Amino acid sequence: MWLHASCSLEFNIPVPTPFLLMLRPRSGRQQWVAREQYVLSPSVSVVEFTDSFGNLCQRLVAPAGYFSVHTSVEIETADVSDMGPGANFVEVQQLPDETLPFLYPSRYCESDRFNEMAASLVAGQAAGYDQCTAIVDYIRNTVTYTPGEGQQIISASELNELGHGVCRDMAHLGIACCRALSIPARMVVGYLESLEPMDLHAWFEAYVGNRWYTFDPTQVGLQGGRVAIAFGRDAADVAIYTQFGDPVNQLNMQVNVERMAEPPF
Amino acid sequence: MWLHASCSLEFNIPVPTPFLLMLRPRSGRQQWVAREQYVLSPSVSVVEFTDSFGNLCQRLVAPAGYFSVHTSVEIETADVSDMGPGANFVEVQQLPDETLPFLYPSRYCESDRFNEMAASLVAGQAAGYDQCTAIVDYIRNTVTYTPGEGQQIISASELNELGHGVCRDMAHLGIACCRALSIPARMVVGYLESLEPMDLHAWFEAYVGNRWYTFDPTQVGLQGGRVAIAFGRDAADVAIYTQFGDPVNQLNMQVNVERMAEPPF
Amino acid sequence: MWLHASCSLEFNIPVPTPFLLMLRPRSGRQQWVAREQYVLSPSVSVVEFTDSFGNLCQRLVAPAGYFSVHTSVEIETADVSDMGPGANFVEVQQLPDETLPFLYPSRYCESDRFNEMAASLVAGQAAGYDQCTAIVDYIRNTVTYTPGEGQQIISASELNELGHGVCRDMAHLGIACCRALSIPARMVVGYLESLEPMDLHAWFEAYVGNRWYTFDPTQVGLQGGRVAIAFGRDAADVAIYTQFGDPVNQLNMQVNVERMAEPPF
Amino acid sequence: MWLHASCSLEFNIPVPTPFLLMLRPRSGRQQWVAREQYVLSPSVSVVEFTDSFGNLCQRLVAPAGYFSVHTSVEIETADVSDMGPGANFVEVQQLPDETLPFLYPSRYCESDRFNEMAASLVAGQAAGYDQCTAIVDYIRNTVTYTPGEGQQIISASELNELGHGVCRDMAHLGIACCRALSIPARMVVGYLESLEPMDLHAWFEAYVGNRWYTFDPTQVGLQGGRVAIAFGRDAADVAIYTQFGDPVNQLNMQVNVERMAEPPF
Repeated sequence: MWLHASCSLEFNIPVPTPFLLMLRPRSGRQQWVAREQYVLSPSVSVVEFTDSFGNLCQRLVAPAGYFSVHTSVEIETADVSDMGPGANFVEVQQLPDETLPFLYPSRYCESDRFNEMAASLVAGQAAGYDQCTAIVDYIRNTVTYTPGEGQQIISASELNELGHGVCRDMAHLGIACCRALSIPARMVVGYLESLEPMDLHAWFEAYVGNRWYTFDPTQVGLQGGRVAIAFGRDAADVAIYTQFGDPVNQLNMQVNVERMAEPPF
Repeated sequence: MWLHASCSLEFNIPVPTPFLLMLRPRSGRQQWVAREQYVLSPSVSVVEFTDSFGNLCQRLVAPAGYFSVHTSVEIETADVSDMGPGANFVEVQQLPDETLPFLYPSRYCESDRFNEMAASLVAGQAAGYDQCTAIVDYIRNTVTYTPGEGQQIISASELNELGHGVCRDMAHLGIACCRALSIPARMVVGYLESLEPMDLHAWFEAYVGNRWYTFDPTQVGLQGGRVAIAFGRDAADVAIYTQFGDPVNQLNMQVNVERMAEPPF
Repeated sequence: MWLHASCSLEFNIPVPTPFLLMLRPRSGRQQWVAREQYVLSPSVSVVEFTDSFGNLCQRLVAPAGYFSVHTSVEIETADVSDMGPGANFVEVQQLPDETLPFLYPSRYCESDRFNEMAASLVAGQAAGYDQCTAIVDYIRNTVTYTPGEGQQIISASELNELGHGVCRDMAHLGIACCRALSIPARMVVGYLESLEPMDLHAWFEAYVGNRWYTFDPTQVGLQGGRVAIAFGRDAADVAIYTQFGDPVNQLNMQVNVERMAEPPF
Repeated sequence: MWLHASCSLEFNIPVPTPFLLMLRPRSGRQQWVAREQYVLSPSVSVVEFTDSFGNLCQRLVAPAGYFSVHTSVEIETADVSDMGPGANFVEVQQLPDETLPFLYPSRYCESDRFNEMAASLVAGQAAGYDQCTAIVDYIRNTVTYTPGEGQQIISASELNELGHGVCRDMAHLGIACCRALSIPARMVVGYLESLEPMDLHAWFEAYVGNRWYTFDPTQVGLQGGRVAIAFGRDAADVAIYTQFGDPVNQLNMQVNVERMAEPPF
């Protein structure tokens, strides 16, 4: 399907403040960026670089006063995300080098503390995709999804105690459990067409059957219409913006995703 | 200045043919991509990756029949390219690692055969930027610039014998001479606002005074309004498209660059 | 000074087990590997790769039974680590791209929770190196260093509550506080000649004054004789070995560092 | 088999001269470095980095006067190089991204000028490994191998006219023909146990059947006992040393390879 997706951020900046942004989706095996737009107001000088996960990042210093960032894409993406029931566990020695960073514990995914829990969740499952499914089912069934209530980022352990969280937190828990089973798992931040209420979304991918598969503990069924904006080990790597120095005031954030009636051209 | 730049390619494809394209300018220290568009007709599946020079490359298989690629950008770029008369030669041991590949000879820049010529061209010049200027002046004064007559790519040596060539060939000669003096030099393919007749353009950059500077042997004065599309060691690295297998028929190529009356937003 | 440093690991392996090792120091600005040795017993097939932090990593499957790894280096390293009192804070917008990953919170360095503490520790200090010194002094003065008692890896927050820890834990706390001040900080695992009792050691580096400086909260004064084996965001990235699957039995670990009376050649 | 291989270089240096060296074999799928030694005399400061082909490179400034470099390895490598008759051609769209640079023409491999010749050499062969074999057979049968007579590096085209050359030149011709057929091909510099007279050696690898295979136009049969020191697009990328500035005087170069009677430990 073709989507028009946009994200607008508005700030009130007390003093000139360095920002790092990640709001430029790239084309990849699962999506094709046909048209893209990136507006800064007021206009400032920007340097762009590619981080070690392949994300296009923008560095800038926001001037004091009102500052806004508006990005949009017209993008083709799959109607339905691929599923792979039965896809096999990849022995660690067979994993591609670039998947290895996604085996380690990270800030919000303390996989080193989830060995027992992960083992119990997947008891009886074939190693690989079906284990991931069991983990996701568990999260969906036991954690209450409370979209819009997630200012402070919490970790997989903290979510486990708290029992309710946002998409990002639920992805962290899924990732932590997968890694505890030696399955590479990574965070994805992006757009999801069917999301309600509309917002940026987070889900995760696990590497089984020699490829990355999408998993989303917040949704029943695995909806397509996804646009990946950034990949990383967890939320610490994929903040759509990070500001340094004294806190700025985010006035507004507006996300919009619409299915296009026809291709953009 | 703000530019709207576009490139359209049309092909007649006898059999399904793999292509590698490099038609997606990236934001960098010298340009900011505010709006971008990439149209394939008919639409095909594409995989994008970043090569070792930082270029965004697209891989696809063009289907048999009529096939077109249309890309455009709205981009902010400098009114005048930076110049650095007197900028110093950087001792090889002080060069950043990432500049080193641009010291070696490459397919069309046989710098290993230009030691004597380069030394004689720069006799009396201070090491660094002024040497590059002397090289560029020599090329501008002795090589006849014949835009539009460059189907087969020729090397710096071949140009030197032939005495006339296109922008790409003249850049090759400049690069070969710089490298012969241990100055890193790289090829740039892109748009130039003031180019006549309009076409894609090629120039080069040399690393002196701890940064890359722009040089263009085809132009008198160093005009701004440049949009870099791809960087590489020479034309072998930065073909805007490479096709594999039996030759396809390129029906048309249309390049357009216009200064925008006002910023796009 | 010239050092001979070695690390031996012995395991009892129940079933064939994939390992990832990081035991091959590389030459760099601060050390030169003149002689190196890497023995696996029994001999097994190994694949080596470079991770995103530049570490040389070895992948192998340890066979069932007794398995040992013995590595040693003869290496030249500085007598005294560089210090930089007064070295300035580098504004985030001026930081090299490759330092940015070391600004984010990571598994064991929850810098997102250390803003207040870090600010209070450095009150009155000039931004940059002197802030790092204040942080290290605080850790040295308030955390009890208990070498040899650190089986489970704890995080900066956990150390802060516990009040005593090993070198690794103290480095984590230093890193977390630096990052909370927007100073890039990274973990180093390596050898330290003067360490008592001898073991592998961990310290950290902070990026101020446009370079990385060494800090070591466990030592009074900043001793030289350091050999960096691996760099990373925290202990999760630089485990000298990681094993996957069911736990193996580490029978023994022996570290030895000796100053060589004269250069090895 | 286990090999002890060494390379010694001696120079007379008129003025302090920057060098770039590539004399540190890395462990990989086909070889395991168990012991290594790298001696510079007099000792100088060195910085090591990894280039875009994965080679460990050393940067240094050789002081005026006598200067020597002595490196050695004890390494395990295959008794017989893998062969793959019938291994299939990999369609360009299926090639891994990292093989693509090895499809393009390079300084000494003008594959853009070898389309016809390559096509005629492989007429009737199955696409892939067997084409490479036909190319190698042609080179072996028509080019006279004259080891030790190759001071100036010549290109594939130049060798084709000249009719005789060294291992490096013959590898260039093989690479140029493979690339003309859209088969990725890369240069390897290294040691070969059975080489007579002993020297550094060069051969090439082609990517067919989803892996790199070894080809050596200078040898009858495909002998094992190979140690890869460096990989690149051609000789321009893999010079074991490159010196910048005025030419230095290489007094001596000594290569030695011996099969070890037993493993080194």
